Amino acid sequence: MSATATRYAFDADTRTEKTGEGEFTAAVTGRWNAVTGNANGGYLAALALNPLAQLLEFPDPLVASAFYLRPGAPGEACVRTEVVREGRRTATGESRVFQDGREAVRAVATFGDLGAAAGRTLELGAPPDLPAPDECVDPLEGIPMPGLTLLDQVEYRTREIPGSLRGEPSGDPAYEFWMRFRDGRDADTAALVFLVDAAAPAVMEAGEVSSATMELTVHVRARPAPGWLACRAATRHIAGGFHEEDMEIWDSAGTLVAQSRQFAVLL
Amino acid sequence: MSATATRYAFDADTRTEKTGEGEFTAAVTGRWNAVTGNANGGYLAALALNPLAQLLEFPDPLVASAFYLRPGAPGEACVRTEVVREGRRTATGESRVFQDGREAVRAVATFGDLGAAAGRTLELGAPPDLPAPDECVDPLEGIPMPGLTLLDQVEYRTREIPGSLRGEPSGDPAYEFWMRFRDGRDADTAALVFLVDAAAPAVMEAGEVSSATMELTVHVRARPAPGWLACRAATRHIAGGFHEEDMEIWDSAGTLVAQSRQFAVLL
Repeated sequence: MSATATRYAFDADTRTEKTGEGEFTAAVTGRWNAVTGNANGGYLAALALNPLAQLLEFPDPLVASAFYLRPGAPGEACVRTEVVREGRRTATGESRVFQDGREAVRAVATFGDLGAAAGRTLELGAPPDLPAPDECVDPLEGIPMPGLTLLDQVEYRTREIPGSLRGEPSGDPAYEFWMRFRDGRDADTAALVFLVDAAAPAVMEAGEVSSATMELTVHVRARPAPGWLACRAATRHIAGGFHEEDMEIWDSAGTLVAQSRQFAVLL
Repeated sequence: MSATATRYAFDADTRTEKTGEGEFTAAVTGRWNAVTGNANGGYLAALALNPLAQLLEFPDPLVASAFYLRPGAPGEACVRTEVVREGRRTATGESRVFQDGREAVRAVATFGDLGAAAGRTLELGAPPDLPAPDECVDPLEGIPMPGLTLLDQVEYRTREIPGSLRGEPSGDPAYEFWMRFRDGRDADTAALVFLVDAAAPAVMEAGEVSSATMELTVHVRARPAPGWLACRAATRHIAGGFHEEDMEIWDSAGTLVAQSRQFAVLL
């Protein structure tokens, strides 16, 4: 076990240890709780991918899809994995996270080596046009968020206090912000799987209180440069209570490092 | 077996029959081949979901993720399924498609009942602003596409002939078009899982010849009204050869009926 794994909360809390053929044990901690009091979905997805990173021959999750079956709670978890396919350039695995014998999360992921990705690059998007982090505000300063322990792990900077936090949702479920781990850990491709789900749902700006993720797909596009991450979250289509939430994460060098889309239901 | 299943190519060719506990047999046909000569990924995803629609208590796929492990080819397939979770409002299953004993596709999907979706609706997007189909052109008329048998099943209408088909790619991998089955079958939620992948990759407008889908996530948002479907495909981020492709399908009544995102690699 590396020193990193003990130093930072994310590494300590997503760590899994092999206990048998394809079986791992993990401890879901209470340090990543969403407003519901349940473990954040991105945290559980990152935990689910941890054993696959150990089993597969490639360092970076390229694409992962996680289905949320039951809420995750602090406590022991058993992770059952399967190596689905091992290729020359990518490998795919499946991971199922059980708590108390019941499956909470099922994830499938394809890993590869982004350091060896030598194909064409054509970027038609642009990072969020945000002032520098130290010219922004901490949107949560002075606002108590009991139970939302995730906020002890991640900090944010925004242009101004979002309307939903002032009791005046803008009506447009879209926002841009900076994000980073509070404990100084820089993001890597494993952490991006968590970070795409580490902000308040955009639908709060449409006046909604909360939303439950049914499925999360994340595309990891590059290894992030150190420092703050510039993020863009948006929901464009709410229908019958179901909605998507899209997220982009750009690193401090202006490179898109992750994209995600969730399928969620309003609570 | 319903009359529908014999009348239309899509129903006949995605049909699966139970052969044992959670096991189904299917015939991948050569009528849905992409330019590569392999079976189209959306077709394989729809085929993978067919047994789940039989097993689960809900009629509509709400969200599905398919990982493509090996090319699909015309011939027999064995589909192994698992009911992952059955809830009051949704149910989740997994489906694995094998050919010659090797897994070609692994899909996880959550089904529900879109007819019972009574929550809030807020549409902030808009359908493509296309002229009526009969004021558009058939972009493929007179252009031989040998081996691309999919084009015998699906037809398209565009504002003008796309640049990539005139040997002059626009440089902007995005386009809008109409689409429908040639044999008169109207789209339903099962067919949308195929149709989100039934058009040429947007990256052709960036001068690329082809792209291989590694993963496809589809969100099915509503049951489509009969008639032509208005579609919008776009790729914004190509990095090291990897790219996303987003697709929206709007029905003839102007309702968003499906969204998809692929993770793909340039060939």
